[in-house]
Amino acid sequence: MRAVDIIAKKRDGGALTGDEIRFFVAGVTAGTLPDYQASALLMATVLRGMDAQETAWLTEAMVDSGVRVDLTGIPGVKVDKHSTGGVGDKTSLVLAPLAAACGVPVPMMSGRGLGHTGGTLDKLEAIPGFRVSLSLEDMRVALARVGCAMIGQTSEIAPADKTLYALRDVTGTVESIPLISASIMSKKIAEGIDALVLDVKTGSGAFMKTEADSRRLAESLVSIGNRSGVKTEAIITAMDAPLGRAVGNALEVIECLDVLKGGGPPDVIEVSVELASRMLVLGRVASDRADAERRVRAAIASGAGLDRFRRIIEHQGGDPRVVDDYRRLPAAPHRHVVASPGAGYLTGLDAQLVGRASVALGAGRDRVEDSIDPAVGIVVMVKPGDEVRAGDPILELHYRDRARLDAALPLATRSIAVGDVRQTPRPLLVGEVL
Amino acid sequence: MRAVDIIAKKRDGGALTGDEIRFFVAGVTAGTLPDYQASALLMATVLRGMDAQETAWLTEAMVDSGVRVDLTGIPGVKVDKHSTGGVGDKTSLVLAPLAAACGVPVPMMSGRGLGHTGGTLDKLEAIPGFRVSLSLEDMRVALARVGCAMIGQTSEIAPADKTLYALRDVTGTVESIPLISASIMSKKIAEGIDALVLDVKTGSGAFMKTEADSRRLAESLVSIGNRSGVKTEAIITAMDAPLGRAVGNALEVIECLDVLKGGGPPDVIEVSVELASRMLVLGRVASDRADAERRVRAAIASGAGLDRFRRIIEHQGGDPRVVDDYRRLPAAPHRHVVASPGAGYLTGLDAQLVGRASVALGAGRDRVEDSIDPAVGIVVMVKPGDEVRAGDPILELHYRDRARLDAALPLATRSIAVGDVRQTPRPLLVGEVL
Repeated sequence: MRAVDIIAKKRDGGALTGDEIRFFVAGVTAGTLPDYQASALLMATVLRGMDAQETAWLTEAMVDSGVRVDLTGIPGVKVDKHSTGGVGDKTSLVLAPLAAACGVPVPMMSGRGLGHTGGTLDKLEAIPGFRVSLSLEDMRVALARVGCAMIGQTSEIAPADKTLYALRDVTGTVESIPLISASIMSKKIAEGIDALVLDVKTGSGAFMKTEADSRRLAESLVSIGNRSGVKTEAIITAMDAPLGRAVGNALEVIECLDVLKGGGPPDVIEVSVELASRMLVLGRVASDRADAERRVRAAIASGAGLDRFRRIIEHQGGDPRVVDDYRRLPAAPHRHVVASPGAGYLTGLDAQLVGRASVALGAGRDRVEDSIDPAVGIVVMVKPGDEVRAGDPILELHYRDRARLDAALPLATRSIAVGDVRQTPRPLLVGEVL
Repeated sequence: MRAVDIIAKKRDGGALTGDEIRFFVAGVTAGTLPDYQASALLMATVLRGMDAQETAWLTEAMVDSGVRVDLTGIPGVKVDKHSTGGVGDKTSLVLAPLAAACGVPVPMMSGRGLGHTGGTLDKLEAIPGFRVSLSLEDMRVALARVGCAMIGQTSEIAPADKTLYALRDVTGTVESIPLISASIMSKKIAEGIDALVLDVKTGSGAFMKTEADSRRLAESLVSIGNRSGVKTEAIITAMDAPLGRAVGNALEVIECLDVLKGGGPPDVIEVSVELASRMLVLGRVASDRADAERRVRAAIASGAGLDRFRRIIEHQGGDPRVVDDYRRLPAAPHRHVVASPGAGYLTGLDAQLVGRASVALGAGRDRVEDSIDPAVGIVVMVKPGDEVRAGDPILELHYRDRARLDAALPLATRSIAVGDVRQTPRPLLVGEVL
């Protein structure tokens, strides 16, 4: 088998065989396939696509490049949730404790924020002492003890994905539904889960801007999961404006704690409850979605979810007192308000621009090696559809450094659209793929 | 300027700017652009194409990666000829001496055979002592003394092409009209010529199998040449069956000498005279094509072309006595005849298969580093359209090594098609692009 023949086959629009795909991934993993051949095949794949079978083989080969965690020793149906990434998208910190409190073991491996979107690991690390670098054995212990582990991807999980992603990042080959799907699903399948709920974001703040693209991605992800024996379903949710009111790591932790205490913004509650309910059904601890939703809401009302989050924090080395005392979380020294330029209605609050403003403040990173500031971020004071007067505060920027504020301000200002006519935002839940 | 942005632009079907293309080629030449980014851009170019302006910029940038030879010190309009490669395509050895004998300075830089097609350098080197590795200064001297230099590409000529071609060869990115055009034309433009005649082959033995593709390639080549100040025209000629009767290096030299002596196969004469005549018009030594053809045929009849070839051989260190004594050329020790499987007409003699059979005998190379045997090859005894009886010799294989004969025989046998109905081959001259 010659790499150049495989490349030429894909270049000409052919479907690769399982052997050809395994040859490619094994070569990438072992370092025996030169980068320049891998990138040529990646570009041909971006432009020619891969069918569902090829994508499933690619995913499997990437899973097989590392270990597939064996969680059969943990009783119950293990369920994880994955989001394709958004701005203010902090639902993992709400739904993982809720699902665990309801009896679903949640082995959650998450990523860090990159570009304008945030990442679960960065949010968790805003909690003083919280350790996300757990070994696979630590993960098993956490699952057995507190029913949930929230950790970063270990080096044993789909190492081919890491190599391929680094190459895709510098060769213009990120934007491909089959490649994105295989990257996401290989890591999820390798976790050893039994079921998975996906939150595929759509809109300006999402990787997929259109509903059609988001649906194609969702269908691809669900197809791969089910082909690999992981029962998978997806919801598609709007990411036109930030989710909730907090954007930035410590700020988002506070918002999650508010939700677990029965408060918090309605949109965060809606998406978190929707996803957690689906996890309960997949995890076979609820008979149907209505039953599941009742249980999830009860876990909020009873404080069982909050209590479970406290135990997760404690088990992973974090300071559980943050749950009751937000002053123990890092806070930025300065605030700057961006006011409404006129009177009328907030017709839009561009999620991508708010996300970029938040990164400019230091809450996220443009490059993997950048460090972040857990304290800074943005609080959304007015949500799209709300009435505003000229001068009303729209965004409150929590900053440490004046130069970073100066970089963030134009982005924050541009994110705001005020108009004369009230426009009702589209429903958050755009669709589902089962 | 970031390579990844240029790659993404081409991936999305955009047209690159001159600056972007120069950035790419300069990075390839200097080795500062990683191979994996170069190959991703190459694949995006194969699948998305390049317009005429982009292709011209690419060619220019490749010319500028090395030296552009200054031949202004040589009087006259310098004209070269280039063929896209065929089987038995030996016209350079006929037309270069003829055009030079008629007063056109011919600075000819050629390549070696690769795959099923032969190369001018390999044919010249079948002449004992003939040196093709001349410096650019040697080339100037040869032009001044004998009006013609037949040499290999020096390392100063379009080094970016060498690097890019090596990468294209292993990344499935050879098949692209813009990339092929820029590769061919950058080397020709860098030679310092004033005008160029192209012989774009079409058919089974050609790189371009269809007339439409061949025409697109011819148009691209002619467009680049004229944009770069090299007056360029192209003819498209059929390469369904081998040109002439000889395939293999020493055998082809003999056939060329026969043509220069007024004999030889009609098809070799036709293409050689056609191309040489165009060179005379472009070189302004003939008033029109009819005048030019008269002069070319006169140079054959008078022996002026043969005499000029003798001087070229002598000047480049070869043994000029081969002109009169073919026994001084290498000859294979053994012959094997492939006979007609039945009676009727030869309806086809697949050029690609004959070419591959010849490579199998050792006359060509599959890989750049392979060495060749100048003596071996194939003589075509019957041409398509001719009547045959069962058992008539069709191909005579000149071989040295029994194992190589065994490898060549199935290919040679498969190249022959005999049928009941006489089929007249299409005319050799398929079209022209001015």
